[in-house]
Amino acid sequence: MATAANAERAYFDWNATTPPRQEARQAFVDAAGRLGNPSSVHAEGRAARRLVEDARERLAALLGARSADVIFTSSGTEANMLALSPAIETDTQKRPRDRLLLSAVEHSSVRAGGRFTRDAIEEIAVDAAGRVDLTALGEALSRCERPLVSIMLANNETGVIAPVAEAAAVVHAAGGLLHCDATQAVGRIACDIGALGADLITLSAHKIGGAKGVGALVRAREDIHFPDPLIRGGGQERGLRAGTENVSGIAAFGAAATAARTLRVSEAAHMQTLRDLLEAGLSAISPDAVIFGTGAERLPNTTLFAVEGIKAETAIIALDLEGVAVSSGAACSSGKVQPSHVLAAMGVSPALARGALRLSLGWETTKADVERFLNAWRKVNGALSKGAKEKRGIAA
Amino acid sequence: MATAANAERAYFDWNATTPPRQEARQAFVDAAGRLGNPSSVHAEGRAARRLVEDARERLAALLGARSADVIFTSSGTEANMLALSPAIETDTQKRPRDRLLLSAVEHSSVRAGGRFTRDAIEEIAVDAAGRVDLTALGEALSRCERPLVSIMLANNETGVIAPVAEAAAVVHAAGGLLHCDATQAVGRIACDIGALGADLITLSAHKIGGAKGVGALVRAREDIHFPDPLIRGGGQERGLRAGTENVSGIAAFGAAATAARTLRVSEAAHMQTLRDLLEAGLSAISPDAVIFGTGAERLPNTTLFAVEGIKAETAIIALDLEGVAVSSGAACSSGKVQPSHVLAAMGVSPALARGALRLSLGWETTKADVERFLNAWRKVNGALSKGAKEKRGIAA
Repeated sequence: MATAANAERAYFDWNATTPPRQEARQAFVDAAGRLGNPSSVHAEGRAARRLVEDARERLAALLGARSADVIFTSSGTEANMLALSPAIETDTQKRPRDRLLLSAVEHSSVRAGGRFTRDAIEEIAVDAAGRVDLTALGEALSRCERPLVSIMLANNETGVIAPVAEAAAVVHAAGGLLHCDATQAVGRIACDIGALGADLITLSAHKIGGAKGVGALVRAREDIHFPDPLIRGGGQERGLRAGTENVSGIAAFGAAATAARTLRVSEAAHMQTLRDLLEAGLSAISPDAVIFGTGAERLPNTTLFAVEGIKAETAIIALDLEGVAVSSGAACSSGKVQPSHVLAAMGVSPALARGALRLSLGWETTKADVERFLNAWRKVNGALSKGAKEKRGIAA
Repeated sequence: MATAANAERAYFDWNATTPPRQEARQAFVDAAGRLGNPSSVHAEGRAARRLVEDARERLAALLGARSADVIFTSSGTEANMLALSPAIETDTQKRPRDRLLLSAVEHSSVRAGGRFTRDAIEEIAVDAAGRVDLTALGEALSRCERPLVSIMLANNETGVIAPVAEAAAVVHAAGGLLHCDATQAVGRIACDIGALGADLITLSAHKIGGAKGVGALVRAREDIHFPDPLIRGGGQERGLRAGTENVSGIAAFGAAATAARTLRVSEAAHMQTLRDLLEAGLSAISPDAVIFGTGAERLPNTTLFAVEGIKAETAIIALDLEGVAVSSGAACSSGKVQPSHVLAAMGVSPALARGALRLSLGWETTKADVERFLNAWRKVNGALSKGAKEKRGIAA
């Protein structure tokens, strides 16, 4: 994204965070200038309340849910912590959930397991393309009484899309509940809560053009209850999440949700066209580049690849100096150099995984950005690749 | 606060939420227009990281703490939930805290008890002025082995200031740790973490002119550890609070903290002058008005009062129609009509407590605002007071 503010940079880290959309920024700034605590009964309070409730309706519309089933949180991570609780109950099943089953490629905030104890958590294998193994899921479910299952809709590193609707059928047949972290999927592929069959869905505002610091947990039906809210005190979010609401962030989330809903199809097509161009160019420059997850359906905006012999951390710094922002994988841990658990679960060798670079595109990405990346990659690949090193070795 | 946007209103609910300060709004908007996840290693990520770390230093300066001891959260409520954990340990005391002692006038987010079980929580009485009873505290401490104590610095309803430094000496002599919710005190009275003697302090951005949706927990020393973060996943906030940081809100919090630090003395004097004027006018109009907490030192900006026979909810609506925003007590519960636990703890009769109205002032409050309130109160008091009702009864 060559913004007006910085035409010298190309930003390929939209899975880490997106720029706020114009309408979200406007809602954010408008709300920031306003007074009033949504819990106050006077005019100022009621005006703040309206901003929150309007955003709640916009979020609900994005997922095809009821607004009463949207719970605002401070992040997707917090929404995952709230969702992954043994205490979650339904009208017909009030005993605690006995097991938490996670796909092996979940985000760190799901892998942390919420409020389940370590020994109650089990990982479900994925195939070589990164899709959760439904047979393995069925087997694990058969060993549980009242399981909670968490499967992300689209992987943050590879962009691989999980068979969530199929998994939901398997989970429900076993008497389980399904939580789906749709943080990376929303705004990029269809995310109707009814069609997905998930009981709970996690969203994050700053991945769809809202602001950092807001997320949501959405339930599919009103008969799903949270007897142990994570943050308790005041009665906000109908007693499910205490603390004064982030009114500006929530208003911006609402605006971003409406944009994501109405523009998704065209934006996805735009991203896919450029992503295909990028992958074609990449393969031309580095014929030995391995693009991960191509055996599965992927998000239209994500490319995770590696070239044997090129270390990700070196390449990221080299690309950054060339004005191109990319990531080595999950944003939340991209400050730390550690091998990807996603690629390990897909059976990728540690040597190759160490070179994994993630390029993620967005609605403002341009063809010029792709060209800037390809030009930069040509230089970096030439300087860092094994072949180049060997040549230098011979010349020395 | 007769803002340019709405000269027809006077806002007296600064303890519920304050308008963002000009410098905070600017920081908020500037950060909102920026790209980058603070966990990303590229230039955009590092720029976002700098905003967060700059704000951390500003918060630390406000409290006289080290920036490494500031943990950003999404609210004061979340900071309280993080602080009130049996697992908190120090280098010399690694066994879990066995009891949580709370003053009887704490905010609902502290009364919820964090992660202590109900039977491990004990309330400490306050005197008629609302100050925690240090003798009762000492006795309760003598029955604990490794207590955690939570005492708010200034009460949100009455503005009464607690003897925190004295309490800290008593708590430490008993081998306990002291958490202090300073949400309402910061920016209004001196809040140096060393002088207070508290081990942990909670702050909220939107009470000092920042944005809603940000808070902080600050520890006095690096030897205090949190083995069980409330929100887990990524490594943000040094592993103590996962989830992408609310960069805009944090940047605004930093700007507000600097303003609160540099302007406190003059702003407090301004508020106190107007508050004294307000109380004098109130007593002239309603000689039977009871102002709560006057037997103790109070914040310079808060007046909680009641007139026997006038119900708070009726008066709030009547004042709102007259263009004056006031509260019935705690903002978080002001949407619900329920008697104040603070006044009950102070021995105030339920009949009188039902009429408690809170007026809280801020740095933008003007003499014209005070006059608007007094004029409105003259009308409302005349229409709603017992005497007026009796007169209407006689006339009918």
